Amino acid sequence: MSQIISSEVEVTHMANGQAMTVPVYSIKGQGNGPSVYIQANMHGAEVQGNAVIYQLLEQLKQLDCYGDITLVPLANPIGSNQKSGEFTLGRFDPITGDNWNRGYHFNAQLPQQFAQQNPDLSMSDIVSQFRALIIADLEQQRFNNPYGVTTGRFLCAKLQRMAFEADIVLDLHTGPISSRHLYCPEYTKQSAVLFDIPHVLFIPRDFDGALDEACFCPWWQLQQAYSDQGRAIEVAVKAFTLELGSQEWLCLEEAKRDSHSILSYLSHHSVIKKGSFEPTAMTRYGCDLKDYRTVYANKSGLVEYLAPLGQQVKAGEPLVRTLRMDRYDQDDVVEVTPALENCIPVLHFASASVNQGTELYKLLTNYFTLSR
Amino acid sequence: MSQIISSEVEVTHMANGQAMTVPVYSIKGQGNGPSVYIQANMHGAEVQGNAVIYQLLEQLKQLDCYGDITLVPLANPIGSNQKSGEFTLGRFDPITGDNWNRGYHFNAQLPQQFAQQNPDLSMSDIVSQFRALIIADLEQQRFNNPYGVTTGRFLCAKLQRMAFEADIVLDLHTGPISSRHLYCPEYTKQSAVLFDIPHVLFIPRDFDGALDEACFCPWWQLQQAYSDQGRAIEVAVKAFTLELGSQEWLCLEEAKRDSHSILSYLSHHSVIKKGSFEPTAMTRYGCDLKDYRTVYANKSGLVEYLAPLGQQVKAGEPLVRTLRMDRYDQDDVVEVTPALENCIPVLHFASASVNQGTELYKLLTNYFTLSR
Amino acid sequence: MSQIISSEVEVTHMANGQAMTVPVYSIKGQGNGPSVYIQANMHGAEVQGNAVIYQLLEQLKQLDCYGDITLVPLANPIGSNQKSGEFTLGRFDPITGDNWNRGYHFNAQLPQQFAQQNPDLSMSDIVSQFRALIIADLEQQRFNNPYGVTTGRFLCAKLQRMAFEADIVLDLHTGPISSRHLYCPEYTKQSAVLFDIPHVLFIPRDFDGALDEACFCPWWQLQQAYSDQGRAIEVAVKAFTLELGSQEWLCLEEAKRDSHSILSYLSHHSVIKKGSFEPTAMTRYGCDLKDYRTVYANKSGLVEYLAPLGQQVKAGEPLVRTLRMDRYDQDDVVEVTPALENCIPVLHFASASVNQGTELYKLLTNYFTLSR
Amino acid sequence: MSQIISSEVEVTHMANGQAMTVPVYSIKGQGNGPSVYIQANMHGAEVQGNAVIYQLLEQLKQLDCYGDITLVPLANPIGSNQKSGEFTLGRFDPITGDNWNRGYHFNAQLPQQFAQQNPDLSMSDIVSQFRALIIADLEQQRFNNPYGVTTGRFLCAKLQRMAFEADIVLDLHTGPISSRHLYCPEYTKQSAVLFDIPHVLFIPRDFDGALDEACFCPWWQLQQAYSDQGRAIEVAVKAFTLELGSQEWLCLEEAKRDSHSILSYLSHHSVIKKGSFEPTAMTRYGCDLKDYRTVYANKSGLVEYLAPLGQQVKAGEPLVRTLRMDRYDQDDVVEVTPALENCIPVLHFASASVNQGTELYKLLTNYFTLSR
Repeated sequence: MSQIISSEVEVTHMANGQAMTVPVYSIKGQGNGPSVYIQANMHGAEVQGNAVIYQLLEQLKQLDCYGDITLVPLANPIGSNQKSGEFTLGRFDPITGDNWNRGYHFNAQLPQQFAQQNPDLSMSDIVSQFRALIIADLEQQRFNNPYGVTTGRFLCAKLQRMAFEADIVLDLHTGPISSRHLYCPEYTKQSAVLFDIPHVLFIPRDFDGALDEACFCPWWQLQQAYSDQGRAIEVAVKAFTLELGSQEWLCLEEAKRDSHSILSYLSHHSVIKKGSFEPTAMTRYGCDLKDYRTVYANKSGLVEYLAPLGQQVKAGEPLVRTLRMDRYDQDDVVEVTPALENCIPVLHFASASVNQGTELYKLLTNYFTLSR
Repeated sequence: MSQIISSEVEVTHMANGQAMTVPVYSIKGQGNGPSVYIQANMHGAEVQGNAVIYQLLEQLKQLDCYGDITLVPLANPIGSNQKSGEFTLGRFDPITGDNWNRGYHFNAQLPQQFAQQNPDLSMSDIVSQFRALIIADLEQQRFNNPYGVTTGRFLCAKLQRMAFEADIVLDLHTGPISSRHLYCPEYTKQSAVLFDIPHVLFIPRDFDGALDEACFCPWWQLQQAYSDQGRAIEVAVKAFTLELGSQEWLCLEEAKRDSHSILSYLSHHSVIKKGSFEPTAMTRYGCDLKDYRTVYANKSGLVEYLAPLGQQVKAGEPLVRTLRMDRYDQDDVVEVTPALENCIPVLHFASASVNQGTELYKLLTNYFTLSR
Repeated sequence: MSQIISSEVEVTHMANGQAMTVPVYSIKGQGNGPSVYIQANMHGAEVQGNAVIYQLLEQLKQLDCYGDITLVPLANPIGSNQKSGEFTLGRFDPITGDNWNRGYHFNAQLPQQFAQQNPDLSMSDIVSQFRALIIADLEQQRFNNPYGVTTGRFLCAKLQRMAFEADIVLDLHTGPISSRHLYCPEYTKQSAVLFDIPHVLFIPRDFDGALDEACFCPWWQLQQAYSDQGRAIEVAVKAFTLELGSQEWLCLEEAKRDSHSILSYLSHHSVIKKGSFEPTAMTRYGCDLKDYRTVYANKSGLVEYLAPLGQQVKAGEPLVRTLRMDRYDQDDVVEVTPALENCIPVLHFASASVNQGTELYKLLTNYFTLSR
Repeated sequence: MSQIISSEVEVTHMANGQAMTVPVYSIKGQGNGPSVYIQANMHGAEVQGNAVIYQLLEQLKQLDCYGDITLVPLANPIGSNQKSGEFTLGRFDPITGDNWNRGYHFNAQLPQQFAQQNPDLSMSDIVSQFRALIIADLEQQRFNNPYGVTTGRFLCAKLQRMAFEADIVLDLHTGPISSRHLYCPEYTKQSAVLFDIPHVLFIPRDFDGALDEACFCPWWQLQQAYSDQGRAIEVAVKAFTLELGSQEWLCLEEAKRDSHSILSYLSHHSVIKKGSFEPTAMTRYGCDLKDYRTVYANKSGLVEYLAPLGQQVKAGEPLVRTLRMDRYDQDDVVEVTPALENCIPVLHFASASVNQGTELYKLLTNYFTLSR
């Protein structure tokens, strides 16, 4: 049994003066398991992760937890509340266009600096001192900047401050219309089979602004820096982005399934009792991020999405059918766009209307089977 | 066999100078059947009607048509092209908030005036002269106003000008997430069973700005005006709004089914060969517009839509489940909102995130079975 | 000296669960002066009224107030916080397009009913009992409706509930780019010269959803109902909309001037000491609402606004110059649109880019001089 | 006298099928002067550059031109036509949030490759062959990518294709509310005094996606690559971004002044007769891009912009006054934010309502006087 403590964090103030807050639920670990940070709904329309956190809480309170766990649903109150028409326009700051999920902080100079200054530190001291260093740097850059920072960067920093305390970071997202898939850093490929997620993208060490990257990049590059000095250390932090279905969709039952998937990962790492949850047997496929391809519409019009998500599609099989009712009785009133190569589509655009150049599908290509 | 003639109509110019046009497909009738006007996609996200027009064209070109038929897909180019995030924000003018489907013209003074001035005109002269009158009035008010008219009213007038030539007007819409339903004016209740649409809303004589109303109100009120003078005449024009599923969704196969539904209506009225298409046998339900109820969220949060569309739901059965992750471990983190009375839900909101006061469901209440 | 008591009113909850609140500042009157309700910023971008309330509070706290005064800045937190690009998109509900300022409640049946049932009531009883009646009706319709009400109607009802207690209601707005003007109901035309506002629109008894109308219509129609029964009574409530310059613009100094204008009106009605503030001498012009004309762009393009606001423009003098850079070296690359008749422009569109049909200017025509 | 030839370029198709086009005006040079490309309105609300192009055309047609000149107004038809409320939401793709002005192409590998392969080429051959190379690469990446490219990248490539032909590239922008300022690459600092623009930002060799960078980066890095090989060459292309006042504002008279400024630059480079136009005498100030500081709101609320644009402000002098009407009678209802250091503000935010973290002002700091 675990006790859940609730609190909240102010992440911005709006024009009318109101503070916007994020709820935080935390469990104090009863042992020396790794600490965990789980967040959902950074993009306003991607609500299903909140239901997963709900189901996690429902189960964690029945279990013994050996590490600290922090769960943060509704992570972006501006995004959650930003409507435009019926839908939630919560993907980017409506003022600037900045993707909310690209405002996390990474100081690329710290890993090398730290490794040079502390060549012989013990691993546990590396973890505690490097963690203190990146937290101090985050606070300096984002909270104590005399010129201020953008709304998005401040929000990200408030979340990142909590995530930086954790050894395991899970950022729960969804695609537009999407099947489940996982972003897994290459340094921990074997983790990919611990979730009940059939499709996996392996991502390299680059920083592109997302939370998972912001959490693992410092440690991964620290490993590299020590390696350059001839010392092998582990990457102390593991961070993943889980894409759990479609945006604008809530289902408590499906969320329960996904909470089991996460619990089996936590169980594997002894955050909860080892072996208490196990990953489901399934065939899992992965591809490298460079082989994760976006199909852009080469023709505008109305679109029927033909390729099923999460299934293998062969080169030449149809992806979309485009209807152009301004061109009836011309040859191209209805046209089908085929897959250029063998692939597994994992998401498609949310609307049936597309401009030339709108993203239609995202595809795993050159994919391979993962083995446990 | 019928020949399809294509043309286009300019409906506005945009800030960069470009004219926005609407494609028009027309068939010249080979007999004296009633004339028909069919339009789709007045709301930008409601694209399925375009596919229905595609399927109608595919079939009409194989058939003999006895009346003139005008088909207008993509009726609102501004709405079609207005994106905000992934979705199409085509329900209202982005500048003013005016619902695009509320800008049609109706001059309430003309019916009574005409009836008083022409008490003894033959029915066929009534039809031709009153039609000429309302067309002239429309052109005067909307095209020759020295102060100009709004973008929406000009667009509506361009479409209404074509619709005013027709005896039968069908305006193809969709709901947000929706099952098929029909708006049928009360004066022609028996028409409701001629379409393959299981749920019907019977609407009174009031004008609220939509195309169907703008087309039948003049004629319905003309009937009333003659009736007040002691003469019984028929309502010369029939106009309907068909709601054919969900917005942001295109399916050519489902569109074919709906095209059959429309062909059976046209066949009934001898626009095409009588008896060539028949309505499908199904139980149809109707209710009066005053009994078409909207359920507004009394609580904000994340919503799971539980009540199935197009099916009977009993009082007390669940409509939505609301998740409030800011209130975990309070009694109301998950709450279910039940139906207040027996009903048939026909549409629900498109997003899983709602404010207090957001429309959740629309319901037929006090509904009754329609018989052929 | 008056004491200012602050409180707040919850007006809705957002998708993430947060309550949105409106600050309320009130002064308890030290005598039997009329009660006053002043509100600002119902449209999110129209912020200057907040500065006027600030300046009013700064002065009222130094003065003796004989009637209760309620001041409500930031009246619409959803509107205030709704950004789209740099600007505040606070004119209409982003979900529905409903103008926030058109959701107030008016039950047209109550005045006649009340007058019939209470033909001989004393005037003071009429005021107290009819006020109780319309408040009860408002609460019934808007707060106790089992199907709920829209976000906008609930917000409006929360504000209207406070406004219904007052004898004098001032709703502070601004235009897009605008000079000062006043909406004054026809039954109290002589009030128009009590404000320092040079241009006045006289509005008839119709209800179109705005706060001023929602406050005076019940009482004006009650007067009419008694008049129909042969009894002359006064309209017990006075309500105005003040347009105090341009949206997206804040100026504390100009706000101080407008606070004096309001204090001179309140002084005239003995809310504060009679004669303590006097209206400024100026020539004031008025026109009837039917003569308040909107000029819509008959041509799209880029627009230079040439006619100065708040000044007399003669027929034929230029309003706008339109640049169409898609048409260089054609005759109409630059065109000037002249005024069709003598007029006083009081506002123009906020953007230099217009579609065909965009509102360009609003003009007083057939205007006349007001005398004190 | 020069003849102006007009044409148009298709840059995308919209959901309803319509092609969006950009007008192109070109003049064939009558000598061997450098070729010029001038573009305006890449951000939809920044319309004033169109008026400048209008005034340039009016004058160029009277003059002899020695180099080819291409002028492209209304460069972004999607941006121009994207409204949200009264204003033009044309800064970023409404679907993705991508800044329209960050989609230009730069292949960082080509300069070094070319220099290595062609160490001894004559300068004129370098120019013609390297130009052919980057054009071929642009076409390959953007027009012949089998997976397609985003709407924004395609649009940018269509414009960049034209700009790549020119020796001088001017991209005409405006700020939100802004005084004139110039982005000038460091390699041609002396150009800064040739325009009538009092404030100049000197930018380094990095590529951040804008047109000026996309045009000069290949050539600047080519210079560097040759330099690394020990050969000194000139940077063959000059490219600038001119910020000509505020968005949503059109003024043909001011545009005429800016056209003179551009003509004096073109005259200096013998595109038109040398000495026919001269820069105006004025004190010009510059700073390095790293010293161009953004002030973000550390407090949300309503803002009065106090610091004048284009003038020197001393440390401690006020920038903005913030009104928080939710906090009346607390100490911070009105607060002033001072400048942190001596600066020249050149632009401020367009709205009076700001969130915590909204950009308030942009400032030149550590600025210096430029001499001719």
